[in-house]
Amino acid sequence: MNSSEQLLPNWLKRSAENIPTRPAISCEGRTLTFAQLDQQATLLAFQLATLGVHAGSRIAVLTGSGLPYVVCVHALMRIEAILVPLNLRLTTEEQSWLVQDVNASLLIHDAQNAERAHALTTSLATLPHVAIGLDTTTTTVTLSGIAPTEVALSEQITLDATQSIMYTSGTTGKPKGVVITYGMQWWNAIGSALNLGHNPDDCWLACMPLFHIGGLSILMKNVIYGIHISLHEKFDAEAVNTAIREERVTIISVVAIMLQRMLAALDKEQGIPGQGRYPAALRCVLLGGGPAPQPLLEDCARRDIPVMQSYGLTESCSQAATLSPADALRKLGSAGRPLMPVQLRIINDDTLAAPGEPGTICLKGPTITSSYDHRPDATAATIHDGWLSTGDIGYLDADGYLYVLDRRSDLIISGGENIYPAEIEAVLLAHHAVVEAGVCGRDEPTWGQIPIAFVHLTADSTVTEQELLAHAARHLARFKLPQHIYSVAQLPRNSSGKLLRRELHTLLPENR
Amino acid sequence: MNSSEQLLPNWLKRSAENIPTRPAISCEGRTLTFAQLDQQATLLAFQLATLGVHAGSRIAVLTGSGLPYVVCVHALMRIEAILVPLNLRLTTEEQSWLVQDVNASLLIHDAQNAERAHALTTSLATLPHVAIGLDTTTTTVTLSGIAPTEVALSEQITLDATQSIMYTSGTTGKPKGVVITYGMQWWNAIGSALNLGHNPDDCWLACMPLFHIGGLSILMKNVIYGIHISLHEKFDAEAVNTAIREERVTIISVVAIMLQRMLAALDKEQGIPGQGRYPAALRCVLLGGGPAPQPLLEDCARRDIPVMQSYGLTESCSQAATLSPADALRKLGSAGRPLMPVQLRIINDDTLAAPGEPGTICLKGPTITSSYDHRPDATAATIHDGWLSTGDIGYLDADGYLYVLDRRSDLIISGGENIYPAEIEAVLLAHHAVVEAGVCGRDEPTWGQIPIAFVHLTADSTVTEQELLAHAARHLARFKLPQHIYSVAQLPRNSSGKLLRRELHTLLPENR
Repeated sequence: MNSSEQLLPNWLKRSAENIPTRPAISCEGRTLTFAQLDQQATLLAFQLATLGVHAGSRIAVLTGSGLPYVVCVHALMRIEAILVPLNLRLTTEEQSWLVQDVNASLLIHDAQNAERAHALTTSLATLPHVAIGLDTTTTTVTLSGIAPTEVALSEQITLDATQSIMYTSGTTGKPKGVVITYGMQWWNAIGSALNLGHNPDDCWLACMPLFHIGGLSILMKNVIYGIHISLHEKFDAEAVNTAIREERVTIISVVAIMLQRMLAALDKEQGIPGQGRYPAALRCVLLGGGPAPQPLLEDCARRDIPVMQSYGLTESCSQAATLSPADALRKLGSAGRPLMPVQLRIINDDTLAAPGEPGTICLKGPTITSSYDHRPDATAATIHDGWLSTGDIGYLDADGYLYVLDRRSDLIISGGENIYPAEIEAVLLAHHAVVEAGVCGRDEPTWGQIPIAFVHLTADSTVTEQELLAHAARHLARFKLPQHIYSVAQLPRNSSGKLLRRELHTLLPENR
Repeated sequence: MNSSEQLLPNWLKRSAENIPTRPAISCEGRTLTFAQLDQQATLLAFQLATLGVHAGSRIAVLTGSGLPYVVCVHALMRIEAILVPLNLRLTTEEQSWLVQDVNASLLIHDAQNAERAHALTTSLATLPHVAIGLDTTTTTVTLSGIAPTEVALSEQITLDATQSIMYTSGTTGKPKGVVITYGMQWWNAIGSALNLGHNPDDCWLACMPLFHIGGLSILMKNVIYGIHISLHEKFDAEAVNTAIREERVTIISVVAIMLQRMLAALDKEQGIPGQGRYPAALRCVLLGGGPAPQPLLEDCARRDIPVMQSYGLTESCSQAATLSPADALRKLGSAGRPLMPVQLRIINDDTLAAPGEPGTICLKGPTITSSYDHRPDATAATIHDGWLSTGDIGYLDADGYLYVLDRRSDLIISGGENIYPAEIEAVLLAHHAVVEAGVCGRDEPTWGQIPIAFVHLTADSTVTEQELLAHAARHLARFKLPQHIYSVAQLPRNSSGKLLRRELHTLLPENR
């Protein structure tokens, strides 16, 4: 393709032309057709234009995962502005850092998050903000009190252009903005369709937060495929089970803990412990967010629930590898083969690992980010010649199927949320009594993992665990708070002084 | 996408890794799995390397539409050489012109076409040639007597690179080579999958010549989708019907005359005139190659045969617009909406036509060619700012559905083959007795259209119609021969002397 060929018609607009009257998205009993979704996105884009939003503007969005967010995503696309979704679970301090780091020019929030938005704009007096709301009578999403300005909207999508900036942390402590282009979204949707199959009558259930890539990518598939999305603002196992039954859901994206709760609810609903089933129309349970417990996969296989484990990260625009329906049972426990546009290799000691040999998972292709926003250092450290070094550990079997052993050595995944030890350590180190800090995950049956911390205190310190936890709570989102903070004499380090987080667990009272 | 992102894994290689043991292609009772097809393409590429074929080499292929051709297509892809398929229906003179025009460095032919190849290489003494054959005992395709050279093969596909050059004529008389890139094939396959749906268990029946884009594009879908292809070297209605029944065919590509014959055979087989049916597994009869007769579409609707009419041309890498399954009945007679990556507009008098207003069909997008090979004049005349002016006439209804009224005014479509009047006229004008010549199509129930010619002879001429037909037969493929050549006093021309082909029919004896 030459440069002029990197254009596609705006996906929502094309779907609105192709199938105007078909349901695009349903949420809390309200449904928008493709024509309605397109009309609302257009109107909202005109309102945003009144506020000075233009191509390339960076817009922070602090809303729940409902229709206002969805319409906002598409309005920003029509105006070629850049979506920066804020994780609702972050503290005001964390959100404030992020909004400044990305240099957002506007904050959009909904009524439920008015208080958080107020706190945020109090700390950032120069940040304009506007409330978005759903008129429940007309099912219309608008910015309250803003007149529309009829500007020329983009009818096309430039695959090279930035669609969103999604923050993720890493080993360096502070979050980094992953640049997500339209092309990444497009190729991810196409790679997924080639693997899972595509049926214009599919209905995809989304119950994951839309401020993460896993949720956002479903909104893109919505308009690229022209399929119906059943959107759940909050995950509720019973409600999800009901929707699967009543809305003819064919695909659902979940993390392991959601699936476990769904099965428990299913057994309760059907009164047959361990044997609850879903309708045959449910053809794919797409499982993401970290390695899945083998017993869960086996339980689903027994129940004929078509679970397709996947592997992906923000940098790969959600799935990079996914088990295919044909291999679901034969390769239980594997995250499958890389999607068609993706190249995957395992690197151990700077060389290609042999089959079965674990190493770092590296990814390349048009679904893989090419940079972190204004972080050439982080980009250079992570991406070489288009190859993204994920830091995650896995191996390929003799047939080339991926088995993920460990997310990047220091990453803690708790209920599908990524927690980065370095970030918690930085907060603990900011306390005057803390000399050294180390954080790792501890396995836990409900959440998968929870963070625990180890600190080496100053000799004269009298600080208590409770006081340190209270300090941490002032700076960190709840889900990142360590379950315990252990005081130890010293932390394990290698010869060059690098903290060995993998050895922290040997310091646990029960392991000493 | 930046330049490094225009790479995809080689499609066949990836399918061979993903689904090595699944059937890739069946032909005449022989089946190759994806692993076998990949192995054979690799071996054949090594043999081609021995013959000096390298990236960018232009290779003329003169074979039937069987396994040798298929393996050859993939071998050329692995070596990044350019496929130039020769239409078997052309005369040696026509083929010779084309091979010279494209500057082919090698001719590959099969045993059935040895005589034609001999004639061709006799006229082109400097053109090396080699025979390709299928060892029916081992189902192995090889070049006879050529040892392999193990060269490094491309593991990737550059979407920008040229995959093939497909000749098509036009208003200028001499054929032009349409540059078909890998990207055009990829985007066409994706656009089609988004429209028709994609099921990894699909089986696509190919019974059209593989030297045309309609056939070749099925071979690309074969490896991009990883689906099974049932390949028929020659179209035989009974054999196709049997395959549909016995091989669980889900999609078939046909032109109108094939479908008519299939229905006739079906009625004979099932003994119920006008009521023969296909199994429900056949989910899509993709109808191309020119406007379809309305009675045929209505007949199929009555029989619940899911016909999806399409519109496309070589320059658009087969389908550019196709009716979707959901609209098949509602919009009977329409060629549907443009595929997702394609933009389509109707231009009348240099302005955008209103709904219902006929005009020239123009196309843009990554499935549309960006040039004719070494013909900057033809490219500039046809493509402006990425928009291809097809010369075909159609309109969009109020819902944006395409109705094709006429292929480019001078194009005759006979049994799915394009015939260009200017080419026949040039041959007639080469006869010493012919002063003026004009060719147009006459409707004919079996072939759709057949060419007829009108000549204005020199005053002293005594040449007969039979003599002129014999002259034409020496230069033109059989299917292009006029059914009749009428001698007339003068041809209709506009004020600037341009031949008005549309008015030729008024000269017919019955219309005078």
